[in-house]
Amino acid sequence: MTQKNLDDLSLRLLQFARDRDWQQFHSPKNLSMALTAEAGELLEHFQWLREEQSLSLSPEKKEQVALEMADILIYLLRLSERLDIDLLDAAYRKMAINAERYPADKVRGDARRAEEYD
Amino acid sequence: MTQKNLDDLSLRLLQFARDRDWQQFHSPKNLSMALTAEAGELLEHFQWLREEQSLSLSPEKKEQVALEMADILIYLLRLSERLDIDLLDAAYRKMAINAERYPADKVRGDARRAEEYD
Amino acid sequence: MTQKNLDDLSLRLLQFARDRDWQQFHSPKNLSMALTAEAGELLEHFQWLREEQSLSLSPEKKEQVALEMADILIYLLRLSERLDIDLLDAAYRKMAINAERYPADKVRGDARRAEEYD
Amino acid sequence: MTQKNLDDLSLRLLQFARDRDWQQFHSPKNLSMALTAEAGELLEHFQWLREEQSLSLSPEKKEQVALEMADILIYLLRLSERLDIDLLDAAYRKMAINAERYPADKVRGDARRAEEYD
Repeated sequence: MTQKNLDDLSLRLLQFARDRDWQQFHSPKNLSMALTAEAGELLEHFQWLREEQSLSLSPEKKEQVALEMADILIYLLRLSERLDIDLLDAAYRKMAINAERYPADKVRGDARRAEEYD
Repeated sequence: MTQKNLDDLSLRLLQFARDRDWQQFHSPKNLSMALTAEAGELLEHFQWLREEQSLSLSPEKKEQVALEMADILIYLLRLSERLDIDLLDAAYRKMAINAERYPADKVRGDARRAEEYD
Repeated sequence: MTQKNLDDLSLRLLQFARDRDWQQFHSPKNLSMALTAEAGELLEHFQWLREEQSLSLSPEKKEQVALEMADILIYLLRLSERLDIDLLDAAYRKMAINAERYPADKVRGDARRAEEYD
Repeated sequence: MTQKNLDDLSLRLLQFARDRDWQQFHSPKNLSMALTAEAGELLEHFQWLREEQSLSLSPEKKEQVALEMADILIYLLRLSERLDIDLLDAAYRKMAINAERYPADKVRGDARRAEEYD
């Protein structure tokens, strides 16, 4: 098996879709829906848990959660491919924006959103 | 700068949260909410577009979409760290499950969900 | 049976929760998660359909969609009760805001969001 | 003003869409996306709050939450109109299903999902 990394995974997902003639369904619009539906399934695992409970899942539950997260990553990568977006690069870019928007000294211990600071 | 990859990004995000004393807010429950809220913002970009239009975004719109996708990846990585889940590994595992669930010969050109096949 | 209306339904839902000692789980935070998870299930029904197809569902599919929409209304009403919000009144208030924000003459045939008009 | 109720509100929303020639955008597929995006905005208000905090919002925050909930109801009603679904009737139907699925004696004080009981 080749080394596990985002680019390899993305290529395999593209091949998977092509083998099934699923590219026709994978418009960015549709993929954004599928991604959000998976995020909803992730939510469902946590919705009745106290925050503390969400930190100590059973092994069985943890694996279910891991597979929901996998689905979200899978759709993120499909979407990146369809839109020709470098996902990892975008994430580093966004981190730099966040670092400017939320200076550590200003927001320490405070989770309010940026627009609420001014 | 170190090489860009998921592990490096995840470590930087952890440091970012620690510097701001935000770990207290980053329970898996809360992170699943933040992730889904970002997925909702992604949806918003596509909700009134035809599928075809969603494939040819303006450069400005494409960058906005890229940054929403970055937010989703960021929360996925934070969640992975809090739950001690190897996200990339889970995605390869999920791909193997999907390959069994959706044999190419059976589902070619058909997007119905697995449970609808039987 | 009493007349079907939002107030009657909301009262019945409150009684349903009390009978099961579920009020303890029904914080607004948790209810917002449950509502969004149901919205994700609604999305799932439509994610691979063309827009045109989404307008002509089979009777069976339409009933499934109706029950997902019911779940969303149910959680909206539970949330209204917990936060002491008059949901119907809020909707009329929001409609008045939208009428000002989107004058018919300005936005006819155009679905861009309000902030993109200026 | 006529009496406030779901049917009146739904008619007004239909007229609002027609006046703006927005029916063309209001396919069930698109409306399900808009609804879920609004659910995401609702989530965002609660994502960093403790459950207890989510029960005692400031008046300003409470009004913001009420308007997000209004948006969700608005899209639910638009969707009902497009699909010719009686939303209130579906909710009563769903409540009857839930009453059978979750007998009070069996599930008291327990929030696990139905499929986890067997």
